[in-house]
Amino acid sequence: MNTHPHFSVNDASVDSAAIVPLPQSRKVYQSGSRPDIRVPFREITQSDTATMFGGECNPPLTVYDTSGPYTDPMVQIDLRKGLAPVRSAWIAERDDTEQLDGPSSRFGRDRLQDTRLAGMRFETQRHPRRAKSGLNVSQMHYARRGIITPEMEFVAIRENLQREAYIDMLRASGPQGEQLVQRMLRQHPGQSFGASIPATMSPEFVRSEIARGRAILPANINHPESEPMVIGRNFLVKINANIGNSALGSNIGEEVEKMTWAIRWGGDTVMDLSTGKNIHETREWILRNSPVPIGTVPIYQALEKVDGKAEELTWEIFRDTLIEQAEQGVDYFTIHAGVRLPFIPMTADRMTGIVSRGGSILAKWCLAHHKESFVYEHFDDICDIVKSYDVSLSLGDGLRPGSGYDANDAAQFAELKTLGELTQAAWKQDVQVMVEGPGHVPMHLIKENMDLQLEHCHEAPFYTLGPLTTDIAPGYDHITSGIGAALIGWYGTAMLCYVTPKEHLGLPDKKDVKDGIITYKIAAHAADLAKGHPGAAIRDNALSKARFEFRWDDQFSLGLDPDTAKNFHDATLPKDSMKVAHFCSMCGPHFCSMKITQDVRDYARDKGLDDKSALSAGMQEKAKEFKEKGASIYQKI
Amino acid sequence: MNTHPHFSVNDASVDSAAIVPLPQSRKVYQSGSRPDIRVPFREITQSDTATMFGGECNPPLTVYDTSGPYTDPMVQIDLRKGLAPVRSAWIAERDDTEQLDGPSSRFGRDRLQDTRLAGMRFETQRHPRRAKSGLNVSQMHYARRGIITPEMEFVAIRENLQREAYIDMLRASGPQGEQLVQRMLRQHPGQSFGASIPATMSPEFVRSEIARGRAILPANINHPESEPMVIGRNFLVKINANIGNSALGSNIGEEVEKMTWAIRWGGDTVMDLSTGKNIHETREWILRNSPVPIGTVPIYQALEKVDGKAEELTWEIFRDTLIEQAEQGVDYFTIHAGVRLPFIPMTADRMTGIVSRGGSILAKWCLAHHKESFVYEHFDDICDIVKSYDVSLSLGDGLRPGSGYDANDAAQFAELKTLGELTQAAWKQDVQVMVEGPGHVPMHLIKENMDLQLEHCHEAPFYTLGPLTTDIAPGYDHITSGIGAALIGWYGTAMLCYVTPKEHLGLPDKKDVKDGIITYKIAAHAADLAKGHPGAAIRDNALSKARFEFRWDDQFSLGLDPDTAKNFHDATLPKDSMKVAHFCSMCGPHFCSMKITQDVRDYARDKGLDDKSALSAGMQEKAKEFKEKGASIYQKI
Repeated sequence: MNTHPHFSVNDASVDSAAIVPLPQSRKVYQSGSRPDIRVPFREITQSDTATMFGGECNPPLTVYDTSGPYTDPMVQIDLRKGLAPVRSAWIAERDDTEQLDGPSSRFGRDRLQDTRLAGMRFETQRHPRRAKSGLNVSQMHYARRGIITPEMEFVAIRENLQREAYIDMLRASGPQGEQLVQRMLRQHPGQSFGASIPATMSPEFVRSEIARGRAILPANINHPESEPMVIGRNFLVKINANIGNSALGSNIGEEVEKMTWAIRWGGDTVMDLSTGKNIHETREWILRNSPVPIGTVPIYQALEKVDGKAEELTWEIFRDTLIEQAEQGVDYFTIHAGVRLPFIPMTADRMTGIVSRGGSILAKWCLAHHKESFVYEHFDDICDIVKSYDVSLSLGDGLRPGSGYDANDAAQFAELKTLGELTQAAWKQDVQVMVEGPGHVPMHLIKENMDLQLEHCHEAPFYTLGPLTTDIAPGYDHITSGIGAALIGWYGTAMLCYVTPKEHLGLPDKKDVKDGIITYKIAAHAADLAKGHPGAAIRDNALSKARFEFRWDDQFSLGLDPDTAKNFHDATLPKDSMKVAHFCSMCGPHFCSMKITQDVRDYARDKGLDDKSALSAGMQEKAKEFKEKGASIYQKI
Repeated sequence: MNTHPHFSVNDASVDSAAIVPLPQSRKVYQSGSRPDIRVPFREITQSDTATMFGGECNPPLTVYDTSGPYTDPMVQIDLRKGLAPVRSAWIAERDDTEQLDGPSSRFGRDRLQDTRLAGMRFETQRHPRRAKSGLNVSQMHYARRGIITPEMEFVAIRENLQREAYIDMLRASGPQGEQLVQRMLRQHPGQSFGASIPATMSPEFVRSEIARGRAILPANINHPESEPMVIGRNFLVKINANIGNSALGSNIGEEVEKMTWAIRWGGDTVMDLSTGKNIHETREWILRNSPVPIGTVPIYQALEKVDGKAEELTWEIFRDTLIEQAEQGVDYFTIHAGVRLPFIPMTADRMTGIVSRGGSILAKWCLAHHKESFVYEHFDDICDIVKSYDVSLSLGDGLRPGSGYDANDAAQFAELKTLGELTQAAWKQDVQVMVEGPGHVPMHLIKENMDLQLEHCHEAPFYTLGPLTTDIAPGYDHITSGIGAALIGWYGTAMLCYVTPKEHLGLPDKKDVKDGIITYKIAAHAADLAKGHPGAAIRDNALSKARFEFRWDDQFSLGLDPDTAKNFHDATLPKDSMKVAHFCSMCGPHFCSMKITQDVRDYARDKGLDDKSALSAGMQEKAKEFKEKGASIYQKI
């Protein structure tokens, strides 16, 4: 078993690996309608195409950037001070919140007064904010009143990825500019299964999607450090990374490090699922240093407060926990209110019973008290609390299947229907809500999950764990589930909760976090491409072009993980000269098909073959035409 | 750049990692209608269920085993002697072949007489066999004449995975036997897109599938060491692993080691794609030591013979290469006869041109000679050659897309249609044939590939590389392509050619080979589940049951990679006592949902709740019923 070094404030230094700039990349910001809307992007510089391939200028490509200030060399990171509160002014200006004297939860106050925690407590205690009495500060509430918040404008800019600027640069890049625009933006029409993705995201579109509940913008007023992002089927598919300690391993420093590592590689949100010691303090460190929304499962901490005895949980303890976490700044809560008493016996003949931790805690409580859970009974009260802080709700699937055997069963779908009812209850109070989904589901049963979720939950964003498409590969469940995640993302899921290689086996370490993140970035992007998300193919096209033109460094830098790509290449060809070589070690210098293709093109060009006429409608006709045309061309030899 | 140690016969020792028995596993053989039909399986022993979970006896599970004699402790492996020729008697008995005095290819004779090669040559030279004049020795030819060969019976037994014996053992395991049968065999009905998979494989079904061309049984008469296997959409989805050196790296010993490593983890066939030095000798070592069919792309070696100058290739050189390799025992040849002259200019405006090595070689040849390739022109001659050895043809997709941009374009589909015509030409001569497919294809365009292949190629087995569903993840293309492979396998592809993490970057090493194999085993199995392949869910069910019952060692051993699963678990909980612990480090001892679920069950049982009544038709009614029933039950407290 691991040793558990006691964490101390003095240990709090940023992981140096989290702040190294990515290769050929720089942090850029695009301003909005006001100067304090500064939307971050990563700009990837590309080299020019070699003269022999056409000598084109390849403008820098802008990609989505979740890494926050950590990759901005102008920012001095000090974990003990936390990140700058970029949203503070927006929140204050709305003048609908007030600063409290201190935590209003009993637990929050107790922890603050516990002198034994001084050595591990985050130093700078900001006083929590809360909505003024009777007011609702959720982004949905603003949206429904027609207000476009700076947060909404921020995400509209963010989702557009500076595509217009890229097109302008392509167009201005030389005489082939217009042709390059056509080429780099070319994308196969998608199959979106009913999504309605506009060509360009406008702040008004963001507002309308939030207003109708089809998207959420998780943004607790007590987490002003977060850079706004949006979760909805008409936006880029997002991914979540789970971190958190357990009673057996990891400490605060390690968890903060996992968070900074997760966002470096593309985690859009992070869930802190800690169940071990010092959950409150761990969360504070993570929140104060996180530029992405943080989610939690409050029942985990509530259970710790009753020493793990589920049946001793009460609404009062749970309520105090919600307030405690809301005032720290948690952006979304997983609430397993769909675990209803009559559904629990439906799991008795399952292969793997109830595998959701939250679900099993509540099931145990329900049986012990032979009544509906306090989470279900007090759902309206929960909404009432969270709208004072703008905590979004993530309706947990406590009865999700833990094996393919249990997929799509009565218990699961009974709960899903309940989640739809709860969605509407939340919307009545203008509370932002998303719905969690499975789990373990064979490929051919995945679509039913999405279809029923759309039907029952009225297009509230779906947020799924995988699903894992087979149970036979422990150690590789990032892959068994990455397959399912890509599929369900294509069908309409808005956010994919990653699964790491350690799933079912142990607590993930940093390597596992990265493996999980990259796998899920692949799944999310594959889904965007299949849905036909506008502009999604640009990065694929840019990378394919770099690949074809033997711009090795560009190929690495444009990829999801430049370090691994470069290391793999360098394993056989480490010299710098090989970064411009027109081959790799797979085939060697005399056999590269890409090089031969270039020869084919050159040959065709030398012989006067008109390349552009090659591509047009009518495959059969074209073949015939070329045969005829080719015959005369080649006679020139 | 790597150093290239010269390989010598003295180095030829088997990789010790390839012969260690897998945990809790033993090699078993099932006999057929004659004693020399001995079909290998891996039998995985399971421990009994703990008393607190019901105390059931869990009979051993039989899984498909591609690892050959390497995992049979009764067999002494000596790479220098090669494997036992298990099919020799069957081939000889048919009395339609003759043993030649020596290689009939010029190149084969030259290499044999080259004294400089003595140090690296495989020692035991078996004289090649060939069909007697005018005879056809293909499995398809026998099948069409109504003959069930021992090879066909072998694969029928192999595909059934001793399911009947497993069911008998379940039934005999105790009073709950019948219930266990129902439970372990339960499987969601599949969505097979027109596949016709019988509940049990019979030798006659195998014969009929081969006769109609819907399956192939690659089994060169000069590769008697191979254990028969079948490739077809109505059988288990298979995977292929590519190995082979290039001019830049790897030697014979390393390639043999990659082969034994690939089959240990589940490679159903192996392609030797060597393009570097001593291709002939490398292949001999691989063939003599391979229990799985070996495929090659003969044009690679032919090109070496003309020093890499594609335009200098001739039919005579190619023909000699086919004979050379056929007489060594290659089981299938990739032939890029679909690369027709009129299709080549269709690739000129692609993003990534022609990425198939074979395709680009032939394209260059076609342009240089301004005529159709000798491979296309001599396709009937090729069939005439291969039917004398029973080499199967794999019709190469020389114009497959090398990027999502190029997916499903005119060039690709023009070639596919030609491959359909060539399929029929091969079938006219009773030559076994499969058809290769892409490549790089976004998810929503994958099905069109399968649909067109079925239409144009009349259900000849489809054999695809991936496809990769996005281009943005160099270093992770086993995953980008594993997603596509799972999908196209579901849609009907018979064999999936793996892609390793090194794709596009370099030559894979042993770790890459294993990563590629496991990823593709996952894809193939996910496809089998989705198609509803009979019995496919048994292994998932067994593993899920082991997981739920905290049989940690069983969970590891039933998985695709027991070593990694165990290592991951042991990273946090290395002690033996933790192999029976009712928790893992993800959640820690106080928080395990599986444990809580068990508590829920126990609780329900204690309170007299009848579990079995929980599952039946009518979710709504059930919920209501339980509420009512529950009310009275719980009043007993």
